[in-house]
Amino acid sequence: MYEGAVQELIDELGRLPGIGPKSAQRVAFHILEADSDDMKRLAEAIVSVKEKVKFCQICFNVSEEDTCRICRDASRDRSVICVVEESKDVMAIERTRSFNGLYHVLGGSINPIAGVGPEQLHVRELLSRLSDDEVQEVIVATDPNLEGEATATYLVRTLGPIGIDLTRLASGLPVGGDLEYADDVTLGRAFEGRRSLS
Amino acid sequence: MYEGAVQELIDELGRLPGIGPKSAQRVAFHILEADSDDMKRLAEAIVSVKEKVKFCQICFNVSEEDTCRICRDASRDRSVICVVEESKDVMAIERTRSFNGLYHVLGGSINPIAGVGPEQLHVRELLSRLSDDEVQEVIVATDPNLEGEATATYLVRTLGPIGIDLTRLASGLPVGGDLEYADDVTLGRAFEGRRSLS
Repeated sequence: MYEGAVQELIDELGRLPGIGPKSAQRVAFHILEADSDDMKRLAEAIVSVKEKVKFCQICFNVSEEDTCRICRDASRDRSVICVVEESKDVMAIERTRSFNGLYHVLGGSINPIAGVGPEQLHVRELLSRLSDDEVQEVIVATDPNLEGEATATYLVRTLGPIGIDLTRLASGLPVGGDLEYADDVTLGRAFEGRRSLS
Repeated sequence: MYEGAVQELIDELGRLPGIGPKSAQRVAFHILEADSDDMKRLAEAIVSVKEKVKFCQICFNVSEEDTCRICRDASRDRSVICVVEESKDVMAIERTRSFNGLYHVLGGSINPIAGVGPEQLHVRELLSRLSDDEVQEVIVATDPNLEGEATATYLVRTLGPIGIDLTRLASGLPVGGDLEYADDVTLGRAFEGRRSLS
């Protein structure tokens, strides 16, 4: 619809996840009217993220070095590994400041419909990390949905024979939520996982 | 939170309109995992839109030439000018294929709270276009909201004395909508603007 460059930008933006045609148009016009230097910085940030960022050779978290900040950090507890699906999950857990161990990013979850099996995930690399005697506990922190649960079940079956402590994050009512709005499965899990107050 | 380049990209994306921190993170990780060439194209589209696109010297629509495609088109009816707030509105009207005249993009609407008065809009340039005898009708197609109505009122007062036909887009029920869900003002306008069926 638009002339050359504007339409190209709208098309490129529209290919990004969660940006529909209307948003793409709004963002394109914002870019058009915004400060040139700011927009050059945005363009450079896109190119440089592709050039600079790679994945940690140990845990597969995003990193600008061969190993990530967390794996390099000598103050972290090396006896616990928290297994997550994505780098985003690492950041979500880091923000809570309630975990001081290491991570292992699987790179997704088992999803037969999308053709993702265990061999597409970094499970083999996790197993080789566990051959080291240092690790005493593996916390399975995959998403509490169908694919995440399938992945957790697979990990339990695969890691079980090694004889390391395997734990799973608690499911239950979200803090700040309303009991009446909780879905049946969550409420059921909250009952199963009830804790003694005495 | 993230290391260098990833965080920079999230920050830059988060400054775009309608993209919150979570969306910025999702888009950043998409960029990180997407094809390098695709992302280079996106970065180039951002830079090139700033370099190539300017505003039509006649109507202030976006254009890659000194005058836009519509102003250059000899088949358009030069006796009607449709006045809109933004280039986006030009495209919205073009999509309907129900108008074959020219446009005039004001570059916004009168908004005293945001400090935008008539002198910040391309009203003077509109007046000089009307000094030409060719134009017989001006359609005021500003948004049907407070600022758009204020702008329309101002235009009527300013252009009235020139003695050109001034019209305003009809307000009424949106096609495909439900009467019971229409707001009071829209429903009131629909009554005022009712048309004879006989």
